[in-house]
Amino acid sequence: MPVSPLAPAAQPDLPPIDGVRLAAAEAGIRYRGRKDLLLALFEPAATVAGVFTRSACPSAPVDWCRAHLAGGAARALVINSGNANAFTGMKGKAAVTATAAAAARAAGCRPEEVFLASTGVIGEPLDPAPFERELAGLAKRAAPHAYAEAAQAIMTTDTFPKQATRRVQLGECEVTINAIAKGAGMIAPDMATMLSFVFTDAAIEAAALQAALSAAVRPSFNAITIDSDTSTSDTVLAFATGAAGGTPIAAAGDRRLAAFRRALTALLTDLAQLVVRDGEGARKFVTVEVTGAKSAASARRIGLSIANSPLVKTAIAGEDANWGRVVMAVGKAGEPADRDRLAIWFGDIRVAVDGERDPAYDEGQVAAYMKASEIALKVDLGLGRGRATVWTCDLTHDYISINADYRS
Amino acid sequence: MPVSPLAPAAQPDLPPIDGVRLAAAEAGIRYRGRKDLLLALFEPAATVAGVFTRSACPSAPVDWCRAHLAGGAARALVINSGNANAFTGMKGKAAVTATAAAAARAAGCRPEEVFLASTGVIGEPLDPAPFERELAGLAKRAAPHAYAEAAQAIMTTDTFPKQATRRVQLGECEVTINAIAKGAGMIAPDMATMLSFVFTDAAIEAAALQAALSAAVRPSFNAITIDSDTSTSDTVLAFATGAAGGTPIAAAGDRRLAAFRRALTALLTDLAQLVVRDGEGARKFVTVEVTGAKSAASARRIGLSIANSPLVKTAIAGEDANWGRVVMAVGKAGEPADRDRLAIWFGDIRVAVDGERDPAYDEGQVAAYMKASEIALKVDLGLGRGRATVWTCDLTHDYISINADYRS
Repeated sequence: MPVSPLAPAAQPDLPPIDGVRLAAAEAGIRYRGRKDLLLALFEPAATVAGVFTRSACPSAPVDWCRAHLAGGAARALVINSGNANAFTGMKGKAAVTATAAAAARAAGCRPEEVFLASTGVIGEPLDPAPFERELAGLAKRAAPHAYAEAAQAIMTTDTFPKQATRRVQLGECEVTINAIAKGAGMIAPDMATMLSFVFTDAAIEAAALQAALSAAVRPSFNAITIDSDTSTSDTVLAFATGAAGGTPIAAAGDRRLAAFRRALTALLTDLAQLVVRDGEGARKFVTVEVTGAKSAASARRIGLSIANSPLVKTAIAGEDANWGRVVMAVGKAGEPADRDRLAIWFGDIRVAVDGERDPAYDEGQVAAYMKASEIALKVDLGLGRGRATVWTCDLTHDYISINADYRS
Repeated sequence: MPVSPLAPAAQPDLPPIDGVRLAAAEAGIRYRGRKDLLLALFEPAATVAGVFTRSACPSAPVDWCRAHLAGGAARALVINSGNANAFTGMKGKAAVTATAAAAARAAGCRPEEVFLASTGVIGEPLDPAPFERELAGLAKRAAPHAYAEAAQAIMTTDTFPKQATRRVQLGECEVTINAIAKGAGMIAPDMATMLSFVFTDAAIEAAALQAALSAAVRPSFNAITIDSDTSTSDTVLAFATGAAGGTPIAAAGDRRLAAFRRALTALLTDLAQLVVRDGEGARKFVTVEVTGAKSAASARRIGLSIANSPLVKTAIAGEDANWGRVVMAVGKAGEPADRDRLAIWFGDIRVAVDGERDPAYDEGQVAAYMKASEIALKVDLGLGRGRATVWTCDLTHDYISINADYRS
């Protein structure tokens, strides 16, 4: 597939973070001729926080991470693309155990300090042999400057790597936060996201890091949808090495954490939007803003009903300002709405108001707007003060092409 | 668009029903060169029952029908295609009132005895002039033998008309039930369906007819989905003329009604499946059967999660037995599921069992099965006795083509 037309013009250059080294390899797990295995090492141990899929059928690595998150300490992170190790039964569990053991040997730590993530096809047994073969070598050549390579190695149907970075004041120290993500398909909100990994030199204990991460995921990754399909493998993990110094922050409510939380949210929002920009087959980046709802939760559900509607998404693909389909999606959301108070905008153009087409509606004006590659769709319900923003992409022929023959 | 490859080989010939006459016209509401206006007359008055969209933004004709259903008597039914008269504000209400008045003049009845339905584009004002011009002539030439023409006149993006008929014993009389429907897109369950109209000469009072209709819609129209998008205009209306004679049935629990209810459910299931067979862009007819769920409601929600998943639907379009995506759709449904008890079949081929790929899995065998135009997908959850069946179609390039330029 060619690179998404919505890709950013340039990739950021992620700076090294003290205590974090990375390396990637071509392990031949599924793909040929590209890197598909990533090892990150934390020396000394980093604190760790995680948010995972709410799927009732989670992958084996998700089970593994959930079980070991309570330890609060990470020495290694192993990620592979090409095989999700999901719905693989006892074989999947055995592969996870073998991989963690191999990584622990390579990193000189306990298996419980190893965190794992896998992405790719569901239901095929994952052979641990490539991990056992590659991890020791990866540990030897791991380096602080390898984020671009890391972001590449975790891609599946992604057409560009997703990276973001921020510098922010934390108490008396300035700290760095780097993060990478992968997305493309099987992306739906409310259940963490696909894979994303955050690295920082901030000194934050695990519980406070978890609180910051959970809060930051809500308006970022949990506010995007590509195709309404939620993965079995969604994982966001954050690692804090503490190398920037300062008194470690222990309490989630510590006021010194405010700027860090804002930066983390902004960083994850950047990445979430990059995931949308690389949605399978995406040609338009769509922002759906809902205001005037009964509550924020109601606004979010209405926003997602619009963002997940195949008829709204195909209309946008066809550059058709078909706001009637937006009305349909508001109506089906199962949330409070009063047809006769509804107003709808495409960009700054109000197309509907008071339950009917805007008297000043000008098809030519709105048709011109729809040709843009970034579309802002706003709905005001006129009922209350609840508001939410979600992001999605259009639904195109390429989505069908990509997914009608992904496995074969 | 060419006729769906899933269309039935022949159309049934619907017999006349005493007390029902129909006629259709080219009123030029939106389409050129095809009939788009249908009038049905009931002489004497028929009892009437209805089930409507649960959309919070219903169309003006849905509002009208809801307001007048309590009267329990119908003399005329007016349906147009090409314009849904939805989200049209006061203009929509005025168009409905003017249409009912014109139909009442033509039928010699009160406007409250006229029922209305509109289907087509949302948000464009509907001009009542074509109705006022055509309805008197239609009333004059209405005839008992016009069901095929009627089923044609209510089509939008449908590629074939949907008709079904049953003969059934009701107390001491044999009665006929005829029904027509239209579908194609913006079809999602749990909220009635698109348009469907049922005509019978049975003598059943309105309350009992309503109970029978509501019960019959649940396992038929409410068990199908084309694209997860629920229309603003979904309407099922049933009209009973009583011309077959016998003591009118007044109580919903009357035992004489049992055979009629079974026949009505079978009839509406036929029509619902025809709607799926004409789903926009459909190339495969898919039956999703869920067993072993905690409850029937849970089974239904899991079935719909599978049937609405774009990744499952594109895999079927690609003739790929991608049961990993079925696992994903079970997992995201928000219903009780135990990954390690799950089993999945395509046709009679079990592909997954006990939380992993079936040991006897044979890619060649299942790949051959996927080439069929009718696909049966079964999931057993191994938790309880809840079961449900839903029907859907695949998601193809043609769905995108149809919907990326429907309005223009």
